[in-house]
Amino acid sequence: MYPKKFEELCSAFEKLPGVGSKTAQRYAFTMLDKDSEQIDMMVDALKGIRQIRRCKVCGFLSDEDYCPFCKDTSRDASTIMVVAYPQDVAAIEKTGSYKGLYHVLGGLISSSKGIYPEDINIEKLLERIEPSLREVIVAVSPTMEGEMTALYLDKILKDKGVLVTRLAHGLPMGASLDYADELTLIKAMDNRRKIQDE
Amino acid sequence: MYPKKFEELCSAFEKLPGVGSKTAQRYAFTMLDKDSEQIDMMVDALKGIRQIRRCKVCGFLSDEDYCPFCKDTSRDASTIMVVAYPQDVAAIEKTGSYKGLYHVLGGLISSSKGIYPEDINIEKLLERIEPSLREVIVAVSPTMEGEMTALYLDKILKDKGVLVTRLAHGLPMGASLDYADELTLIKAMDNRRKIQDE
Repeated sequence: MYPKKFEELCSAFEKLPGVGSKTAQRYAFTMLDKDSEQIDMMVDALKGIRQIRRCKVCGFLSDEDYCPFCKDTSRDASTIMVVAYPQDVAAIEKTGSYKGLYHVLGGLISSSKGIYPEDINIEKLLERIEPSLREVIVAVSPTMEGEMTALYLDKILKDKGVLVTRLAHGLPMGASLDYADELTLIKAMDNRRKIQDE
Repeated sequence: MYPKKFEELCSAFEKLPGVGSKTAQRYAFTMLDKDSEQIDMMVDALKGIRQIRRCKVCGFLSDEDYCPFCKDTSRDASTIMVVAYPQDVAAIEKTGSYKGLYHVLGGLISSSKGIYPEDINIEKLLERIEPSLREVIVAVSPTMEGEMTALYLDKILKDKGVLVTRLAHGLPMGASLDYADELTLIKAMDNRRKIQDE
């Protein structure tokens, strides 16, 4: 019923995550009401994707060969935090309490999805292991895939004599104890700490 | 923290309805993972918007001068259903029980938004009033703006001697009576019909 060009636009939007036919149509109608300038802006933004590169050292997004973190000599180069995705770097940076470097894997090891160690950015991490490196913090989500990746990294990095740590598991701050799931409670009990240490 | 080109892509996606910064970023990351071909597909789809036109008669979307409905001589030309948006045509067509023509206003009269009768596609509707036209069905949503538009159309079309009707208000089919809002119940009582008429 709709013109072919309109249907094509809907299909394009349907490729976005979580966008069904109804939402895609809504987006398409919105674009239809926009003037040429705004459409051009979106077209240019999409074309600009090709200019987004990955940092040659850590794999984070960058306009240039090296990302702002790797270029920043004021950051503590003795610590590398390994994350799965660039978004995770943003989440950690928002806390403002980490001053070391990052390493973005670009994914997690997953036997079910057929993602093996050689498919993610691990080789470049190994190249970064130097005597001056004190600690590698594995900051991956506590999912099956996160666990597999953490264990793999622990094994290969320990062999190289680096201290490998991971983010703590336990009750989220502000959360109600009786709403926590069993696994989280078990982890919180296992990892209990002396009160004066906190 | 993210490259400028990436931020630009996020901003572009944020222009879509109901898309906040988090969703826009999710869309941008998805596009980042797509290959050139898929990005080109989206770019071409957006560029294609300029080729989408409005039917010269009814205002519905079309590749050509006239839309599929206006070109279809098998449809009943004695009835025109007036709707606010092209999406409404799709909703009516899905019922499969309307065989007349359409007229798309492209909006509704709204004093609060400063949309006046001359801002929507009413002039072309008046041009379609011919002696062979039997009925104009005003099929707008029962909102304040819909009501204003319906009353305005009723006034100017009646003067031209056309029968003007509107969609019935009442209980939605399958809905529970005790969940209906008061206004709907009042309308349903006011518009009650003899059982054998149904």
